[in-house]
Amino acid sequence: MKVINEPLSVKTHKRNEMIDITADVADIVAKSGIDIGMVTVFCPHTTAAVTINENTDPDVTHDILLTLEELIPHLRKGYRHNEGNSDAHVKSSLFGVSQTVYIQNGGLKLGTWQAIYFCEFDGPRHRNVHLSIFG
Amino acid sequence: MKVINEPLSVKTHKRNEMIDITADVADIVAKSGIDIGMVTVFCPHTTAAVTINENTDPDVTHDILLTLEELIPHLRKGYRHNEGNSDAHVKSSLFGVSQTVYIQNGGLKLGTWQAIYFCEFDGPRHRNVHLSIFG
Amino acid sequence: MKVINEPLSVKTHKRNEMIDITADVADIVAKSGIDIGMVTVFCPHTTAAVTINENTDPDVTHDILLTLEELIPHLRKGYRHNEGNSDAHVKSSLFGVSQTVYIQNGGLKLGTWQAIYFCEFDGPRHRNVHLSIFG
Repeated sequence: MKVINEPLSVKTHKRNEMIDITADVADIVAKSGIDIGMVTVFCPHTTAAVTINENTDPDVTHDILLTLEELIPHLRKGYRHNEGNSDAHVKSSLFGVSQTVYIQNGGLKLGTWQAIYFCEFDGPRHRNVHLSIFG
Repeated sequence: MKVINEPLSVKTHKRNEMIDITADVADIVAKSGIDIGMVTVFCPHTTAAVTINENTDPDVTHDILLTLEELIPHLRKGYRHNEGNSDAHVKSSLFGVSQTVYIQNGGLKLGTWQAIYFCEFDGPRHRNVHLSIFG
Repeated sequence: MKVINEPLSVKTHKRNEMIDITADVADIVAKSGIDIGMVTVFCPHTTAAVTINENTDPDVTHDILLTLEELIPHLRKGYRHNEGNSDAHVKSSLFGVSQTVYIQNGGLKLGTWQAIYFCEFDGPRHRNVHLSIFG
């Protein structure tokens, strides 16, 4: 059994944004030489997240971000945290900071319409993602 | 160390539905011969999810689905995705597409009241679940 | 490869509360002797959760709990479950019952601002957490 840790950098451009990182993750998995196992994509930030959703129609991520924005607007009466990003912390816990995908034949075992997204909720920023490959 | 991948089919009957698949997962784990390790139950769809919650009182899943429906109604002004299931994509990311449960003595190490649910948010459909057993 | 299962007890003091258990998890990982691998922190309850978020400013958890309370109030018209804690079941599925963190050099590979929280949504109670360390 091997465990390989690899970093991945993500540049975000908006306050709220979903960035498809599937190809980057698949590349790093392919280079790891691990044929069967799993990869955990872990976001080490508290105002961002990692999720899996559709990437064929860009309107899907638009609609996801719109829903989050309406349910959890930037400001809310009663917020105490003085950095003005409490909404981003909530969104991070709702979507979660990691996703695990199994590896089969050296590739990601995702569904046909699935992609791995880095979710920025307090950008734009330079962000890091940790990939841990186990196999 | 072994990694065993097994499929599981799920037939859903409503647009929004939580289906208890614990017994199916436990069966597949028992047949895998893995006594200690973990199983990841992964939903390869983008309008469905996997969660862990109570299964003793069926009113619990009723109330969970009611809450989701009220927070994230089927239609929302501003949605662009033309398949009419943007709400289902949001719910999928909120609940998440996979759950990992540890295996001890060949069985699922769940809490007393916990069950594994396949969550349909855009049914009825024939759905697939991927089980990856590691141990 | 080793798999080590360890319990952790958590005493909660309010109905809704986020308790930082990072130091406890790190201690148990250090004592496991596993240098590289991963730990899954699993909540075996259906009205509680485990999440990862900021722990530097206590106002962050205040604001997270406030947002959840406003989106998912204790009571909702239409709830059928007669224990009066349907909101807690919803919150549990939204945050999720487990988090996985990789272990490097015998320590938790968390981001600078990240902490592991046990989230109580129907307290105060005595709760248990299962740690499964793999490496």
